[in-house]
Amino acid sequence: MMHLKPYLAEKREIVDRALESCFPPPAGPAGDVVRAMTYSLFAGGKRLRPILCIAGAEATGGRAEDVLPAACALEMIHTYSLIHDDLPVMDDDDLRRGKATNHKVFGEAIALLAGDGLLTEAFAVLAGMSLPVTTSPNALTRVIRWVSEAAGYRGMVGGQVADIQSEGTPPDEERVRFIHTHKTADLITVSSVCGAVLCGAHEEWIDALTAYGRGIGLAFQISDDILNIEGDRGTLGKKVGSDVERGKVTWPAVFGLEESRRAREDLVRGALDALNPLDHRADPLRAVARYIVERQR
Amino acid sequence: MMHLKPYLAEKREIVDRALESCFPPPAGPAGDVVRAMTYSLFAGGKRLRPILCIAGAEATGGRAEDVLPAACALEMIHTYSLIHDDLPVMDDDDLRRGKATNHKVFGEAIALLAGDGLLTEAFAVLAGMSLPVTTSPNALTRVIRWVSEAAGYRGMVGGQVADIQSEGTPPDEERVRFIHTHKTADLITVSSVCGAVLCGAHEEWIDALTAYGRGIGLAFQISDDILNIEGDRGTLGKKVGSDVERGKVTWPAVFGLEESRRAREDLVRGALDALNPLDHRADPLRAVARYIVERQR
Repeated sequence: MMHLKPYLAEKREIVDRALESCFPPPAGPAGDVVRAMTYSLFAGGKRLRPILCIAGAEATGGRAEDVLPAACALEMIHTYSLIHDDLPVMDDDDLRRGKATNHKVFGEAIALLAGDGLLTEAFAVLAGMSLPVTTSPNALTRVIRWVSEAAGYRGMVGGQVADIQSEGTPPDEERVRFIHTHKTADLITVSSVCGAVLCGAHEEWIDALTAYGRGIGLAFQISDDILNIEGDRGTLGKKVGSDVERGKVTWPAVFGLEESRRAREDLVRGALDALNPLDHRADPLRAVARYIVERQR
Repeated sequence: MMHLKPYLAEKREIVDRALESCFPPPAGPAGDVVRAMTYSLFAGGKRLRPILCIAGAEATGGRAEDVLPAACALEMIHTYSLIHDDLPVMDDDDLRRGKATNHKVFGEAIALLAGDGLLTEAFAVLAGMSLPVTTSPNALTRVIRWVSEAAGYRGMVGGQVADIQSEGTPPDEERVRFIHTHKTADLITVSSVCGAVLCGAHEEWIDALTAYGRGIGLAFQISDDILNIEGDRGTLGKKVGSDVERGKVTWPAVFGLEESRRAREDLVRGALDALNPLDHRADPLRAVARYIVERQR
């Protein structure tokens, strides 16, 4: 069995270097937006989505360096979603990963625009990347389309809307499945698979990674729900108990804590099964799946 | 000399049909975001950017139907920027094109997400389009990159940030040039040129359209500034005098009204000169340039 911690630390380092190289030093009349974008981008994220992208590429014979721009783009999209989500008109959070949220530091207008800027830059970085010569040029537009669908109104944005609209409504199975799938799992799914697509992996492996991503994506959000109930504020770096306070539709609210833990384990087991067509090079993905059950933040 | 009005009406109709076909009927837990996105998308816009995209394609021998997805994407990006711009944390406008602004109808959270959704969907539509067989496949990623740079922190978002940060500061030539170029001219430039790129136009024509777009883009924003001073509220469908009220850095604030009118005419003349390498098929672009000087809304 592989050791996940050093693997994650190594990849996180690679991703951080790549993200740093994406932005110029803040300067000129619009310097503040670069300051605001990079503030949240380097506020201590786990880099789960970029690492999934890299691990998915490596699991299918690709190389990390070939997919780094895509890895960075996914983290930019994730970060934009957090900045907008924290705004007073949304969740109104002051603290994220133990640090002041973007609008607390830069003001709401700049935070709004920093989110817009990160989302847009993600597509600039994706469209500007070059593929391994063995990959069909169509792979890049396929990935851009997939990422934008996973992030947009059919995916993450749609999940956010359903999440907000459902606050205070009675817990409902169909609804929580919709919210969690789109708000969280869609972007995690495309993160798990796009590295492999960009490296020209064949369709059987792409299908395997897609099923893996769906499973861990949903499991990840269920973990978030569970941690919001029984997590430690210090370790999490954000408020605990806020979901109940806001009347959010969560997995535990619908199924209870015990059943939520079981669902998470089933989903992770399914994700591991989905990886069966892949050899030992997929071990980091297997370790990430197990980590989702065990994580404390 | 060609008649612009029927040309604009015809193209606007084509663009509207194409935009309608981009969205499903609002349904499900996230139906409200589709409702909000399409509300602003069909709130009476001039469709200037899509029409420039189509006219640029046709000016270089391409066909409107081949660039319609790009035309729609540009209008989505423009519309997202208006929705976010109207939010209370930004310009706090209640009225846009004579109709209630998005957040007035759907609330601030949904308006924020509708903007996010439109921006993201623009890239889904772009990445999903198919090119004429004679165009190099690289043209599409080149356009996606160009569009995202023009819309993001190097372009429109950067211009917005500079615009906000400059409110109440002394009028300054370098700053107003920065704001207007990025806030407005960058997206108009890429609108003028991307249709031609997607149809495989050669570089000389692409350069001509780029110069044209820069000229009319800046002229267009100067017109906006002038109309904000001496326009008619009823015709404009929005507030007049708000720039002075907010201490915005505008062309008239820096140079005066008379000099602003002259600058606008010089820019339009330069844009027309830039089109010299193009034949009569560029006449709609020439007519649009003249319209920018004469427009009342």
